[in-house]
Amino acid sequence: MPHSYPVLRLHSLDDVAQAIRSMQVRGAPLIGVSAAYGVALALARGADDATLAAALQTLAAARPTAVNLHWALARLQACLLPLPPSARAAAAWLEAGRIADEDVDQCRRIGTHGLQRLLSCRRAGRHRLEIMTHCNAGWLATVDHGTALAPVYAAFDAGIDSHVWVSETRPRNQGLLTAWELRQHGVPHTVIADNAAGLLLARGTIDAVIVGADRIAANGDVANKIGTWLKALAAQAAGVPFYVAAPRSTIDFACASGGDIPIEERAADELRLVHGCDAAGQPGVLRQLSADEAVANPAFDVTPASLVSALISERGACAASREGLLTLYPEERHG
Amino acid sequence: MPHSYPVLRLHSLDDVAQAIRSMQVRGAPLIGVSAAYGVALALARGADDATLAAALQTLAAARPTAVNLHWALARLQACLLPLPPSARAAAAWLEAGRIADEDVDQCRRIGTHGLQRLLSCRRAGRHRLEIMTHCNAGWLATVDHGTALAPVYAAFDAGIDSHVWVSETRPRNQGLLTAWELRQHGVPHTVIADNAAGLLLARGTIDAVIVGADRIAANGDVANKIGTWLKALAAQAAGVPFYVAAPRSTIDFACASGGDIPIEERAADELRLVHGCDAAGQPGVLRQLSADEAVANPAFDVTPASLVSALISERGACAASREGLLTLYPEERHG
Repeated sequence: MPHSYPVLRLHSLDDVAQAIRSMQVRGAPLIGVSAAYGVALALARGADDATLAAALQTLAAARPTAVNLHWALARLQACLLPLPPSARAAAAWLEAGRIADEDVDQCRRIGTHGLQRLLSCRRAGRHRLEIMTHCNAGWLATVDHGTALAPVYAAFDAGIDSHVWVSETRPRNQGLLTAWELRQHGVPHTVIADNAAGLLLARGTIDAVIVGADRIAANGDVANKIGTWLKALAAQAAGVPFYVAAPRSTIDFACASGGDIPIEERAADELRLVHGCDAAGQPGVLRQLSADEAVANPAFDVTPASLVSALISERGACAASREGLLTLYPEERHG
Repeated sequence: MPHSYPVLRLHSLDDVAQAIRSMQVRGAPLIGVSAAYGVALALARGADDATLAAALQTLAAARPTAVNLHWALARLQACLLPLPPSARAAAAWLEAGRIADEDVDQCRRIGTHGLQRLLSCRRAGRHRLEIMTHCNAGWLATVDHGTALAPVYAAFDAGIDSHVWVSETRPRNQGLLTAWELRQHGVPHTVIADNAAGLLLARGTIDAVIVGADRIAANGDVANKIGTWLKALAAQAAGVPFYVAAPRSTIDFACASGGDIPIEERAADELRLVHGCDAAGQPGVLRQLSADEAVANPAFDVTPASLVSALISERGACAASREGLLTLYPEERHG
């Protein structure tokens, strides 16, 4: 991607764990759903407590930051542990399917709520809604619709003219996935270097920024793809609203603040190597840094709640704060 | 670069103009010096007023943002116009040589003044000075020493332990030039994606940020490589000093504020294509975006003076303001 669109069939727990680790499966909600199916696959040849525990442990260790992974595994564990081993495999498939269906429904709702918010940001006298996003939080990162991109697709389906400013999102270039998605849907968009986001915001080109999340702490701090904080700072400085769209499974009420979220450090070769297609259209890899060049490659940063104009979930929009989250999820007040 | 180190010999005005346009020659101070030599080359076959005017016009049009280009051309014009045509060619070579020599001397002084400032930022209990920069403002961007990197080289020469965090600087990856330069000198450094700068600042990893400039307005606003403003915002949010190092030729007292600085928009292929070396070490190019993908590629942004801890020039450090600049350049007060 975006040069070809291979479909990968995962046959085992190890397939799923490796797909999550290597980011063949990526996007917080899709990681959660995939992990649920990973548990179901693991139980096919036996579902005693030890097998279940080992599967949960393997998947939990695949990636640290996106909490949807741990949320989905906790849900599977709660569902399966009380059952006799002979009933667990079938129940795991059912529960994974429920999580997948809920993800589609929740993302669709995020699209509806998010679009209302975005439309309220359109500048006076401007026909077209100018949206900036970061990374890929579309249907490639969820089961369908996406989170940050769900309102964009909702706008398109409603015949509302919108245009998306897509950051490359180095080092993994997930912005190119966003560009590819938007192209499939016919949504107008423009690709920029991550560095260009500030200037566009300062110039008044952008009506609103909307991103997904890998974990939202109980106080509204948001861990998301590295570089998100820089966009949030620039949006605040430019007076542009900054929204975070995510389903319930991304909210970690057990995590007090952003400082408690583990930040994944990924392989140096993500920066050292660059990917593309050669003149014949064949996928290729070039080296831009020698193997002994020192590299740091943190995959996420934390945007403090104070920079987030609103959180948008399947239940609506709320302030990025504990109180705001509890207005949407009152059942967590004494949780 | 950084895979090979070709040396280009420029034989004519057009060679120089093309080298500046294509960024074979880049870095505000080096563009200025090169333009001065471009005028000298243009006058080799005749130095009447029309030839001189045409040369100045061709070079002035090569790139819009770095004011050193216009500063050098104005200096050549003021030096040559009063002379008889027969004396102009020789005088142009002399004046270009003076500008080059001054650049070396000024950059060396920037190194001395800048190092004092950087050392005052080293956190208590930390032996090593942790410096972040953006783009390339080293000797590849000047005649020697560099601007932002001059204090780094001064530290190294003085035996002061320092380490530089080098952002890729998409889309042209000038950070890889910085990494290459630092490697030649044996200065420890780590390459990061531009997106990672915020997290490192938030974590307290960095003692100070120092960048070069393409134009400093009279009020202290700074135009520099796209993405600079994002680093300045993050530095302020993290309480880390943010310095801008540049010689007198980068300061445009005729430009009231950053809003008056023209921002160059460069070719879309800078984002669409990626460069590197193949497995055999041969330079190669891959396509990461199709030719019909819409791209915006502004090359600079403006960092407001309020985010700049100090400007550092060959005369010392000053506040980023008109009054600050006039303490260093009192001769401009009634200029």
